[in-house]
Amino acid sequence: MLVESEGTIAGIRRCVSGIRAEGGAVGLVPTMGALHEGHLSLVRAARQRGDEVVVSIFVNPAQFGPGEDFERYPRSLEADLELCRRNDVFAIFTPDVREMYPVASLTRIHVAGLTEGLCGAHRPGHFDGVALVVGKLFNIVQPDRAYFGQKDAQQAAVVKRMVADLNWPIEIVVCPTVREADGLAMSSRNRYLSPQEREQAAVIYRALLRARQMFAAGEREAQAITAAVAQIIRDSGPWTIDYVAAVDPDSMRPMTQVSSPALVAAAVRIGHTRLIDNLIL
Amino acid sequence: MLVESEGTIAGIRRCVSGIRAEGGAVGLVPTMGALHEGHLSLVRAARQRGDEVVVSIFVNPAQFGPGEDFERYPRSLEADLELCRRNDVFAIFTPDVREMYPVASLTRIHVAGLTEGLCGAHRPGHFDGVALVVGKLFNIVQPDRAYFGQKDAQQAAVVKRMVADLNWPIEIVVCPTVREADGLAMSSRNRYLSPQEREQAAVIYRALLRARQMFAAGEREAQAITAAVAQIIRDSGPWTIDYVAAVDPDSMRPMTQVSSPALVAAAVRIGHTRLIDNLIL
Repeated sequence: MLVESEGTIAGIRRCVSGIRAEGGAVGLVPTMGALHEGHLSLVRAARQRGDEVVVSIFVNPAQFGPGEDFERYPRSLEADLELCRRNDVFAIFTPDVREMYPVASLTRIHVAGLTEGLCGAHRPGHFDGVALVVGKLFNIVQPDRAYFGQKDAQQAAVVKRMVADLNWPIEIVVCPTVREADGLAMSSRNRYLSPQEREQAAVIYRALLRARQMFAAGEREAQAITAAVAQIIRDSGPWTIDYVAAVDPDSMRPMTQVSSPALVAAAVRIGHTRLIDNLIL
Repeated sequence: MLVESEGTIAGIRRCVSGIRAEGGAVGLVPTMGALHEGHLSLVRAARQRGDEVVVSIFVNPAQFGPGEDFERYPRSLEADLELCRRNDVFAIFTPDVREMYPVASLTRIHVAGLTEGLCGAHRPGHFDGVALVVGKLFNIVQPDRAYFGQKDAQQAAVVKRMVADLNWPIEIVVCPTVREADGLAMSSRNRYLSPQEREQAAVIYRALLRARQMFAAGEREAQAITAAVAQIIRDSGPWTIDYVAAVDPDSMRPMTQVSSPALVAAAVRIGHTRLIDNLIL
């Protein structure tokens, strides 16, 4: 029962009005396409809540830095549409860059504090770009709920804080990370990996599990835990570790002594592919 | 038929739901209270458009700088409520600071370009504070239209741009400046003026009229026009001129050669009272 994909803001607003006119609630799943089981788990979570689901597919240039992978980011619109059809998505919003940014945005949304560490430190401006496009999508679709993956934990924290600070009448639902059989977190960027890298990339999750094990065994020194995680990754290949950190899951503030709940997060470059993952302790 | 004043976000949302349930459109008039004929002209414009009117009254600390007049800004809630009642306002939203900022906002909305000159240059952070509270009010009230006065021309331009950039589904209506008999633009801050200052303050409008006269007579040099305006103000008393400028009304970019439409704007300190005014050429 998929309403056909809508490339225009006016079009998706008409779709949403249709849902509302029939008394339905709207769940937004914002994506950059190249859909995988992680995205589909968000769709299913929204359906289970009773929402009619709008999936947005937009590779947002504002959240990519110079030299990052905006140009080569995987695009697979036909396959994405088919996955949406099979998963009972109501409407797909597929704007192009001109529809979203008819002129360059002079307006910037910045969430201080939460965006300075972790990925924010390694991708300057990234979270401003995320906040901008998410704010735009919220105002375009006006959903009742919006669904994000725990894999992008810092993004989820930034969006939650932005929604609270700006009083958007939208519930943010964060869904568990979906993993491959060997534990690798699902990501569109996994498509970049060579078969060998793909196999090796599972080390990130294995290393994070070590953090969980240490915490369960009573270790509370953040430094000891993150060093052990980093060592496991380093021992497995010539990878560049952007960070391994233990932070408060809401404020993203680094912890010295780890107390529950804590987020242990890592960003690692496997070859040319930057992957992130995390676990809650 | 005034619904009583609502101090809570939940309360005003219920009011607005009530309007919507009866098929009504919502017009928001955001104010800092100390209501005068300028505010009431916004209410009347909204009523003429057929909107049910929500007036927000909130002296927003985020838009005042250190040493500015946040503490002494005039508060006259009882008189404001009476004016709203007489002018067919549907609901008044009167949150306190804790309701609007239960914790300090980490989220900042910045509109680049438009906020660097004029009042932005003299009141650092002011327009970020305005953008923040207006964004919050938009998400709390979710109006169909929001009404602003042309007297605060830079504010109106900032809000319009923010709404366009972030796709808020809200029409921004800018209404003409309402003036006293001698031409002084209505402002809550006029209450600060001593009787003598009040009389002298009319020079700002008289000086701006000189700009209009010069433009009508063919003068196109911005420098000549703004210098003449400033000279008239300077000749009338020991006032501090923050700026007199000719700018593009949308981008707020300074003009060298004045072409229509142009905004000639001035900010002048009459004693301890900072007043602003402008005319469109």
